[in-house]
Amino acid sequence: MSKEIPYKIYLEESEMPKQWYNVRADMKNKPAPILNPATLKPVTVEELEPIFCTELAKQELDDTTPYFDIPEEILGFYKMYRPAPLVRAYCLEKKLGTPAHIYYKFEGNNTSGSHKLNSAIAQAYYAKKQGLKGVTTETGAGQWGTALSMACSYFDLDCQVYMVKVSYEQKPFRREVMRTYGASVTPSPSMNTEVGRKINAEFPGTTGSLGCAISEAVEAATTQEGYRYVLGSVLSQVLIHQTVIGLETKAALDKYGIKADTIIGCAGGGSNLGGLISPFAGEMLRGEADYEIIAVEPASCPSLTRGRYAYDYCDTGKICPLAKMYTLGSGFIPSPNHAGGLRYHGMSSIVSQLYDDGLIKARSVEQSEVFKAATEFARVEGILPAPESSHAIKVAIDEALKCKETGEEKNIVFGLTGTGYFDMVAYQKYNDGKITDYIPTDEELEKSFATLPTV
Amino acid sequence: MSKEIPYKIYLEESEMPKQWYNVRADMKNKPAPILNPATLKPVTVEELEPIFCTELAKQELDDTTPYFDIPEEILGFYKMYRPAPLVRAYCLEKKLGTPAHIYYKFEGNNTSGSHKLNSAIAQAYYAKKQGLKGVTTETGAGQWGTALSMACSYFDLDCQVYMVKVSYEQKPFRREVMRTYGASVTPSPSMNTEVGRKINAEFPGTTGSLGCAISEAVEAATTQEGYRYVLGSVLSQVLIHQTVIGLETKAALDKYGIKADTIIGCAGGGSNLGGLISPFAGEMLRGEADYEIIAVEPASCPSLTRGRYAYDYCDTGKICPLAKMYTLGSGFIPSPNHAGGLRYHGMSSIVSQLYDDGLIKARSVEQSEVFKAATEFARVEGILPAPESSHAIKVAIDEALKCKETGEEKNIVFGLTGTGYFDMVAYQKYNDGKITDYIPTDEELEKSFATLPTV
Repeated sequence: MSKEIPYKIYLEESEMPKQWYNVRADMKNKPAPILNPATLKPVTVEELEPIFCTELAKQELDDTTPYFDIPEEILGFYKMYRPAPLVRAYCLEKKLGTPAHIYYKFEGNNTSGSHKLNSAIAQAYYAKKQGLKGVTTETGAGQWGTALSMACSYFDLDCQVYMVKVSYEQKPFRREVMRTYGASVTPSPSMNTEVGRKINAEFPGTTGSLGCAISEAVEAATTQEGYRYVLGSVLSQVLIHQTVIGLETKAALDKYGIKADTIIGCAGGGSNLGGLISPFAGEMLRGEADYEIIAVEPASCPSLTRGRYAYDYCDTGKICPLAKMYTLGSGFIPSPNHAGGLRYHGMSSIVSQLYDDGLIKARSVEQSEVFKAATEFARVEGILPAPESSHAIKVAIDEALKCKETGEEKNIVFGLTGTGYFDMVAYQKYNDGKITDYIPTDEELEKSFATLPTV
Repeated sequence: MSKEIPYKIYLEESEMPKQWYNVRADMKNKPAPILNPATLKPVTVEELEPIFCTELAKQELDDTTPYFDIPEEILGFYKMYRPAPLVRAYCLEKKLGTPAHIYYKFEGNNTSGSHKLNSAIAQAYYAKKQGLKGVTTETGAGQWGTALSMACSYFDLDCQVYMVKVSYEQKPFRREVMRTYGASVTPSPSMNTEVGRKINAEFPGTTGSLGCAISEAVEAATTQEGYRYVLGSVLSQVLIHQTVIGLETKAALDKYGIKADTIIGCAGGGSNLGGLISPFAGEMLRGEADYEIIAVEPASCPSLTRGRYAYDYCDTGKICPLAKMYTLGSGFIPSPNHAGGLRYHGMSSIVSQLYDDGLIKARSVEQSEVFKAATEFARVEGILPAPESSHAIKVAIDEALKCKETGEEKNIVFGLTGTGYFDMVAYQKYNDGKITDYIPTDEELEKSFATLPTV
């Protein structure tokens, strides 16, 4: 290919994907079915309907349909902030002195600051289409809550966010973004729900937890007429919506005749990673191409590299369906000094199965080196990355430096899921030399594995 | 034109401007020369050289050269975050039910969050090319300081930012972004400079002011070997660099055969407005086209709509050259309840002259309606705008609603200078119903006009 590659490859709007891809359709080993926590039997659409929108419940359980049309209304919204650019990291390459070509798919060019919006708008759309009044959700740091509030304001849908109380108080900026988009943000545990009142009575002055916020959001959804609960990661439906990342990436590479060698993504619940790699993994599954795919997780929360492949609860409150996944046990709590996101105890069942089948490699990195890579990247590429995304940056830099040694001109593609503008407390810690690493001991992991259910 | 207009018009990198435009070359009535504060005579390049880089001093005083080549190194940096999209506000149009077509040039897709980076990178480049070690500047809220620290880190140039102490303490996020890019950020007044020590001795416990921070930055530049002082607005050199906004806007409109009718920009010091409108004003000056150009300023700091056209100090410290401009007097201090940016007492001498010659109209708006427009815009267009940019949004909406009454299909173009991610304290005030309006009385203005020098 002699075509000159620009700094940023933008697809035309007419080149944007019109369908999401469901990689399960191409998987010979399907992810194990999710189980009803009450019966421990595979859930049905009917059992999911009181909690999820009907269309989303169908997507969740569908492992045979390869493509879902993206509804026109969602395409319209996508066009406000997509296509996202595929950026050639010329300046980083030069700084590293590597012969490798580094590309990143940048998902931070929207007010939610991350890829979360890709699924939030889909979930809001299906809720609206079903004639619902609103949706409920929980949020920790607030990234997902922000994306959902933007999506709901677009469709004029009520949005009720239960935000872990400590974050509500310590992260007022995220809270205010959500309020600006019209969401009601309630510190959890609250007095709005039975479970919240119970927790407040039992533990006066508690600052809350994600598990508790999930419980409140689910109760709020099931006890109000016309409401459903929505979730920002882990679920297969979310991963389907996020394939817009990978489909655009592949279209942009194809447009310039670039063949990716290594594809790198950070992995928390797996929605971003799964969305990025699905179309590439699909090619591998169909025997059409081969790629090296690397999932990057924090050493402090190493579900793929040190977890067990087993059925587990998706939430600490144990009210959501069980999924078979790489997990540290739903009782696992990452060290409080952990500043780099990606705190989820398990991993998307699709990503887990692909990993178990050897299509994906995994690597864990420590947060001090993640922030070092983030700062190095920011100073030459201009974008201040989210700590989560910076896990992928770290490994992309490592791979590019390997190429410097071997002389290989590899094409390295990584997902830059978002910006770090609301993560400056973590950056301040790093700037002040106060970021410390934490790796759980085998004993600690054994203890949290003990919280795995016997299925 | 039958060509379908996409949501976002991106130029190809090959279509990006290769030169900045200097509108003074086409002005029959040139802006009055800037004066040396010591001699009250027009300054020379030689007199500016101890403070500014030589190349920038030349640009500052050049009112005959119509175009300046953009150096390759700057073009390379521009390509990391430019071209900026010209967005068709389909969703806002639909919400308003207007026949008008609304476009906005979005300058917020970079970590500094605004257009400031366009000039920061130019100023850093010329400093590097001159073999300097570093630059100094002041910053209030931190937008300019952030842009400059990004630019300096790219060219490996030392960056010393004097940040008004109250902002340093109350806006730690901006401070940390600057530190992440390697800048040293000093709360002003500091003990680093003579003027800082003097102010600290006279007013123990003072939280500082922009005037004081400027004085410290200038002293730091002139007393350290290999340093110069740089400024983010008001100056003609800054306005030249910012014409990349207007040139891209015009190229994007031309590409789709769109003729702008009304062009709207917010105006503080005038660099964004001047940069956006220069190429259009140039056409008007050359008799090639006609546009309605509207500068929007806050009612609380109304330099164009209620100011005097006179020589004034550019800084409250009275150490920078004097410029003839629309001004409220350098002693003017906007109300402390003012949350919406654009606090500068004067206006770029180029913009002032164009306004005086009738090529630009001006309108002032109150901050409660600015935040109302900002929220309305965010909820349908997705982007959370900076309060400064939202002044332009307010008037763009007003103009679009006028078209709804008259049925005119006007093409309205406005500058969306940046995002509001670091302005959530102001949004919180609005969300809580605590934004109040403030319009200075005639008596107050008379008092500040009394601070005008007699030249």
